[in-house]
Amino acid sequence: MTKAAFYCGDKTFRLESVSLNQPKDEEVQIQVAYCGICGTDVHVYSGHMDQRVGTHRIIGHEMSGVIRAVGKDVNDLNIGDHVVVRPLSHCGQCSSCQRGLTHICENLVFHGLDTDGAFQEYWNVPAHTVHSLPKDLSLSYSALVEPLAVACHDVSRARVVSGEEVLVIGGGPIGMLIAMVAKEAGASVSIVEVDQERIAFAAELGFSSFDARAPELKETLLNQTKGQGFHAIFDTSGVQAGVDLFTEVAATRARICMVAIHTNKPNIDLFAFFWKELELVGARVYEPEDFEQAIKLLKSKKIDASSMITGIYPLEEIQEAFTPAKKLSMKTLVSVSPDLMEG
Amino acid sequence: MTKAAFYCGDKTFRLESVSLNQPKDEEVQIQVAYCGICGTDVHVYSGHMDQRVGTHRIIGHEMSGVIRAVGKDVNDLNIGDHVVVRPLSHCGQCSSCQRGLTHICENLVFHGLDTDGAFQEYWNVPAHTVHSLPKDLSLSYSALVEPLAVACHDVSRARVVSGEEVLVIGGGPIGMLIAMVAKEAGASVSIVEVDQERIAFAAELGFSSFDARAPELKETLLNQTKGQGFHAIFDTSGVQAGVDLFTEVAATRARICMVAIHTNKPNIDLFAFFWKELELVGARVYEPEDFEQAIKLLKSKKIDASSMITGIYPLEEIQEAFTPAKKLSMKTLVSVSPDLMEG
Repeated sequence: MTKAAFYCGDKTFRLESVSLNQPKDEEVQIQVAYCGICGTDVHVYSGHMDQRVGTHRIIGHEMSGVIRAVGKDVNDLNIGDHVVVRPLSHCGQCSSCQRGLTHICENLVFHGLDTDGAFQEYWNVPAHTVHSLPKDLSLSYSALVEPLAVACHDVSRARVVSGEEVLVIGGGPIGMLIAMVAKEAGASVSIVEVDQERIAFAAELGFSSFDARAPELKETLLNQTKGQGFHAIFDTSGVQAGVDLFTEVAATRARICMVAIHTNKPNIDLFAFFWKELELVGARVYEPEDFEQAIKLLKSKKIDASSMITGIYPLEEIQEAFTPAKKLSMKTLVSVSPDLMEG
Repeated sequence: MTKAAFYCGDKTFRLESVSLNQPKDEEVQIQVAYCGICGTDVHVYSGHMDQRVGTHRIIGHEMSGVIRAVGKDVNDLNIGDHVVVRPLSHCGQCSSCQRGLTHICENLVFHGLDTDGAFQEYWNVPAHTVHSLPKDLSLSYSALVEPLAVACHDVSRARVVSGEEVLVIGGGPIGMLIAMVAKEAGASVSIVEVDQERIAFAAELGFSSFDARAPELKETLLNQTKGQGFHAIFDTSGVQAGVDLFTEVAATRARICMVAIHTNKPNIDLFAFFWKELELVGARVYEPEDFEQAIKLLKSKKIDASSMITGIYPLEEIQEAFTPAKKLSMKTLVSVSPDLMEG
């Protein structure tokens, strides 16, 4: 028997003992080391997604771990491998899959939401979801591979190149990782955020950070780019003010990457799209190459993972891990298997 | 002295005699054959643009003509050449110009709005705006080069490729030309329109045409694409219903080209952009290669210009030419110089 944390509805997790299942032929069994808390997990915890996940579901997908068993049809992975999971399975039949866009498969299965996830000691997943890690990359840092792959996908979708002026609207964990990846691509990065602690944190990381509520924000931001506007903008805010801002401070032919989940239909200045030939580009999850880039960025220490990890809780304290922090919170990890906990 | 039609405010044109000026060193003098009426010209006529154009302005830019004099610094154009004008001059200094995007120059001068235009017998323009025509292309058809270049630019911005399902929202002159260019690129083209005569006209031209007010329009359109949605969509409508429609019937990773001038800020389903990784791409005027493509398409008869020309008026009747037609109107031409009038 091993331990698993079940989301049981209404902001409640319950630890249960579950039997250890051997992986199926095309699966591997991973002992989970760390699993980060995603914004989506917080939505589940808050009860917003009960219809999709039910109220007896092991969630979690921002994980790292070690392979402990390998199904008989799996050839390229071995017991002892350090790995992360790209938690997507596609149907192979729909028009997206047929165009090679498996990450936006019209019947996409998201492991850890539509299936049980990584807030359990042993997680069996299809081998095709697994990316191997270099052994010299710590397992706690590796729990950032998944959100960092999101950021890599976003920056790739926005086609950021060296020397460009980039604006990130919203300085949460994904916004901060986007800023880091864009900076590593050679861009000059500014961040707009409402939370004072996050504004200060962004500045500490070396970004030009601005208070979204400052008077004359538009003018200040345009001055930051010597008047030309930003070449690439990432909206991680999901609010009307973000949508208003991005058309105002965009350079001609700017790419605006839609990262946020807008639950309302905001008003948008489509005249600006016509006049400045702007592009709005949606970005959802990631593709395999985004995972490989994220692993490479962490291994080369070009992304400073340690600054992003602002809390680590044992699995027994998952309930506390999900309770909103009073201080600055970027990425909270859960240490799932005690014997894989790092120093 | 030669004749010119001046827009004098309040839906009024007045014919005046003007003196014939020799071209400046870097200009050519064109005897105007035909000049089409653009939607923008109708806006001027209606008084919406008095602040920009004033009330003593020769408008018109969708023209064709013959070079009658050449400034001393012009080397590559000759008297007798049949030509059209790409009516844009750029500053060369702004950040758009410095990135090679001269057509969206931040100080763009549009000839025929910001300067006098082609509703006059002799028009002097900078030589850099001129494209030469093959002699076997009729001057009346050549008056379609400019709006066809708009369509070429739009289709190019939307990256339409052979075999794709394309939807054009709005079957006015530009929508119809976009449909023709997309079809020529190998796409299967559908058109949504409100006007019954235009719906019938689109069907006559061989397009799948749909009534925008039909019940279950979304389902009908999706069925048209076997459920997958459209790979490229052009919004020429400029209305909220068009914006609602394009996110609903877009395939994953569809490119939505914003051709229309939205004077309001409509509501937009940004969640669909995220979920389906859609792209919205603004498209304004044209680049030199769009003019060359338009000339090529007309010369090769791959675009049927004759079907698009629904009326020709002599310059003396410019007032009538601008009066809204009771029957189907696509492109109305003004025959500016009587001695260049065809057949």
